[in-house]
Amino acid sequence: MLLLRSCNSLTRFGPLSTQRLQVAPALASCAVRLHSSFSQDQKSYQHATNSPSWKHALAGVLAGTGAVLGYALHHQKAERTDVSVPTLEKSSPLPVISQDEVTKHRSLEDGVWVTYKGGVYDITEFVAMHPGGDKILLAAGGALEPFWALYAVHNQDHVLEILSEYKVGVLSGEDLKKQQAVKSSDPYSSDPERHPVLRINSLKPFNAEPPPEILSDSYITPSAFFFKRNHLPVPQVDPASYQLHVEGLPGGVLTLSLKDLKTRFPKHTITATLQCAGNRRSEMNEVKQVKGLNWGIAAISNAKWSGARLRDVLLAAGYGPDVAQWAHHVQFEGLDKDVTGTTYGASIPLNKAISEDGDVLLAYEMNGEDIPPDHGFPVRVVVPGVVGARNVKWLGKIIVSAEESSSHWQQNDYKGFSPGTDWDSVDFKSAPAIQELPIQSAITTPADGAVIDGSDRTLTVKGYAWSGGGREVVRVDVSLDGGKTWQVAQLGSGDKGQAPEPSPPPGRAWAWKLWEVTAPLPPEAQELEIICKAVDNSYNMQPDTIPPIWNLRGVLSNAWHRVKVKVREDEGRE
Amino acid sequence: MLLLRSCNSLTRFGPLSTQRLQVAPALASCAVRLHSSFSQDQKSYQHATNSPSWKHALAGVLAGTGAVLGYALHHQKAERTDVSVPTLEKSSPLPVISQDEVTKHRSLEDGVWVTYKGGVYDITEFVAMHPGGDKILLAAGGALEPFWALYAVHNQDHVLEILSEYKVGVLSGEDLKKQQAVKSSDPYSSDPERHPVLRINSLKPFNAEPPPEILSDSYITPSAFFFKRNHLPVPQVDPASYQLHVEGLPGGVLTLSLKDLKTRFPKHTITATLQCAGNRRSEMNEVKQVKGLNWGIAAISNAKWSGARLRDVLLAAGYGPDVAQWAHHVQFEGLDKDVTGTTYGASIPLNKAISEDGDVLLAYEMNGEDIPPDHGFPVRVVVPGVVGARNVKWLGKIIVSAEESSSHWQQNDYKGFSPGTDWDSVDFKSAPAIQELPIQSAITTPADGAVIDGSDRTLTVKGYAWSGGGREVVRVDVSLDGGKTWQVAQLGSGDKGQAPEPSPPPGRAWAWKLWEVTAPLPPEAQELEIICKAVDNSYNMQPDTIPPIWNLRGVLSNAWHRVKVKVREDEGRE
Repeated sequence: MLLLRSCNSLTRFGPLSTQRLQVAPALASCAVRLHSSFSQDQKSYQHATNSPSWKHALAGVLAGTGAVLGYALHHQKAERTDVSVPTLEKSSPLPVISQDEVTKHRSLEDGVWVTYKGGVYDITEFVAMHPGGDKILLAAGGALEPFWALYAVHNQDHVLEILSEYKVGVLSGEDLKKQQAVKSSDPYSSDPERHPVLRINSLKPFNAEPPPEILSDSYITPSAFFFKRNHLPVPQVDPASYQLHVEGLPGGVLTLSLKDLKTRFPKHTITATLQCAGNRRSEMNEVKQVKGLNWGIAAISNAKWSGARLRDVLLAAGYGPDVAQWAHHVQFEGLDKDVTGTTYGASIPLNKAISEDGDVLLAYEMNGEDIPPDHGFPVRVVVPGVVGARNVKWLGKIIVSAEESSSHWQQNDYKGFSPGTDWDSVDFKSAPAIQELPIQSAITTPADGAVIDGSDRTLTVKGYAWSGGGREVVRVDVSLDGGKTWQVAQLGSGDKGQAPEPSPPPGRAWAWKLWEVTAPLPPEAQELEIICKAVDNSYNMQPDTIPPIWNLRGVLSNAWHRVKVKVREDEGRE
Repeated sequence: MLLLRSCNSLTRFGPLSTQRLQVAPALASCAVRLHSSFSQDQKSYQHATNSPSWKHALAGVLAGTGAVLGYALHHQKAERTDVSVPTLEKSSPLPVISQDEVTKHRSLEDGVWVTYKGGVYDITEFVAMHPGGDKILLAAGGALEPFWALYAVHNQDHVLEILSEYKVGVLSGEDLKKQQAVKSSDPYSSDPERHPVLRINSLKPFNAEPPPEILSDSYITPSAFFFKRNHLPVPQVDPASYQLHVEGLPGGVLTLSLKDLKTRFPKHTITATLQCAGNRRSEMNEVKQVKGLNWGIAAISNAKWSGARLRDVLLAAGYGPDVAQWAHHVQFEGLDKDVTGTTYGASIPLNKAISEDGDVLLAYEMNGEDIPPDHGFPVRVVVPGVVGARNVKWLGKIIVSAEESSSHWQQNDYKGFSPGTDWDSVDFKSAPAIQELPIQSAITTPADGAVIDGSDRTLTVKGYAWSGGGREVVRVDVSLDGGKTWQVAQLGSGDKGQAPEPSPPPGRAWAWKLWEVTAPLPPEAQELEIICKAVDNSYNMQPDTIPPIWNLRGVLSNAWHRVKVKVREDEGRE
């Protein structure tokens, strides 16, 4: 028999501050949830219903995104029931349970038990509600500590409160001692040091962006300031023993050392901008809460990348025209792993990988130096023109395949949906995995809310603009009056005082343009709404507003960028 | 000395009706214009100023677009002066002038004289104001009749009124007889018959679109209904003697007969949508007048095209990787000519032409039959994913080149600009020639202004969606409430009862999707604003509104499509 019980006190949503130092959004808990009753046979629990939409809703945390907030909101709506039922009697003494007994409970059929700091918990009913999906089953029959060390989002009081509801016993003293002998370590302890200027969206895994004004300071973003987007701990890779495996081609598996990559293939260099699918997500959050890291406008950066062409490596591994008859995708696996050994993964269409004009690199240099640990040392894929998520870091394996990557990040994340699609109706199979990104631009200075000096009667506005798929930005329009009138900005593809980069061949404009315009202030204006919008050489244009492109995952936020500033008249001047 | 004179009575703008049978928009005249005075030396006229922006503004009519309306508006604004000056004395007898004398006046330096129906006209001062630009000089020293036969837009009363202002004499009787012996013919007299259902935007050259509801009737648009967009008379080409010349490659000129094209190269078939850059221009006209044919939403159609791949022909003509070192464009010349012998021309980037995935065809079949005369018989270029203007019809010549086509249509037309750019500030060199088009969609039914039956409480909305560059349409959102809420439409790529076309390879989605959604009517609604917006697989989205994408040429009109309908409750039903 199922007992339902209110736990409204557990509903705690952490405030989401924009572009400020913060840890991952708080793990939110359910407001009302199913709770198993005790019966004489503790194995007779009913299982919580596990609808398909749940699976998607819950999978978010696997991406390390702290996506659970949306889950909780959804859950609250879907599950609220105001029935008055007996509450769990907790004052009775809890039995002592051996590790052997715990180990027997490793499935929904047998019950799912876990231990945490000497307590034994039957979380069978919670599995369906777990924001991280049924990956929770990997901890079944054992200790939670090593998993929670990986997913630091669990280290919050209300998570413990939820857990406490499921306590069914205490671990025997002997078994507890054995557990404690296995010291749990922080898998993030070997993450590299980062520049303090970065604005942290999530510490573990590390996700951070530079202040926007730094972006427009230099055409090539210094690696230290380049936005960081990690899904898992940064793996420690020994360059001397590093191996890259290329699979799926008629020649069998090709294994390459770092030296092979550097010496057997021509070194190719491109300048390419990478952008996170979630760049500017914070603006979507202002419309309606979405799932994901609350990125500002700086989850985008531009670097010089050098390495072997993926095309050359695939040809060396046996690629030929016959392969294109059955293969349609090239999958990548990172060396970054979760506790289950699952690696980060993604794939790109084969034609992008094999095209001479695709410029896909197995990069071992970023801005003229070894790729830093946060960006994929020693080798990462750079897929120019394509969303950051497919530019797999710490590359371990390449698989030529008839199928897309089966990874969570390819199948159930990084896809766009209609604003009318919610977590109840979403069908991840109905949308294509994001590859090329749409036209984008943003104002890096002045900042939203700034007070500007109006005595000059002019204002200089700066920003960036970029488009996916190698489409070159050909124009940026800027308005100081909320979109009534527009001026054309000057586009730059180099730093001041230096020659601009040469014009790219058509379809291979991988790098952004920085832009700038100095425009007269509208007369008498005390407040300005400054807007930018860009156009690429396929004449794609940004949508005007966020609400019609809002989507439950908060990706592809590319409406016009708007900042409001106040004008201060300096009365000391004429 | 210059005399200025009001001619407000000449300001006549024909009404622009949308999607109705109509001839080309009226040739508008200047409201106030420079007029040369008579002096004793008739050669001493001052020349009208001829600013660079004029050259662009005036060039429109060369495209046969009836673009002169905007010119006149511009001119009126720029040139209005309210000075009181003596008027031309016309009652004095005009001198008799010989053809020899007329022939001496063929330049701005020597004066520009023309004859028309026995009159001699000194149009030197008018050259700078001519909507067709300085092409008018081609008639200098001779008769206007053959030119006006080609550009039928001149056959209007107020054009004659303008001309009469410049009369300086009468042609000698002997010379007039000689002229009349050369019978002027209508170059459009051999244009083919067209289907009466087409809505004509311009008769000479012929430009017409089908009623929108016909578009969504069939996935493949029947050739008779396929929109027609001609810049010049339809040339009569004898298929037996037809020759295609391929130039610019190391092998010298390759000349191919129609039989060569059909037998020496594999026949390749694609389904591809073509769209005029000016599709939906009428919506821009509602914001502010632009130049160009007042297209509704149906300057887009979808057909099956068969022919030789351009790639194969270029390889046969000597193309090799070395060519790519210096060549960047492939130019096309049509066999359609103006009176000066200038052919229609355009070019595309070399990489599109030579790419295996580019699918550029030298097509000799449309929908399984010989290409009809209006669509380029016997051979046209089909550049899938690229604006109609580069799909050159009646193909006569292919030139591999380091340069873009120098044609008017490549250089000074078919480009997009900021809404803040006007005919005074426009620099055509600052914008790229339109090639790939952006994401587009429109509602074909119900029509704007329709009254729908509300008794069913549901409404079925249909339309099309397409994107350039081979980007596949992946979603269409439809709103019945002006954009507050959205529903996802069903996409189709085939006709009802038939299997849909197979999914295209990535980057090669050349054909549109037809879509349909049946949605509940908003309760109590008496009027609906229905909106559609589409998304392609690079997640490009349509802009929300027209004004921020308005441009002086009225191209690239791809904001959300909106139609308003009234809901009629049928009181006879429950």
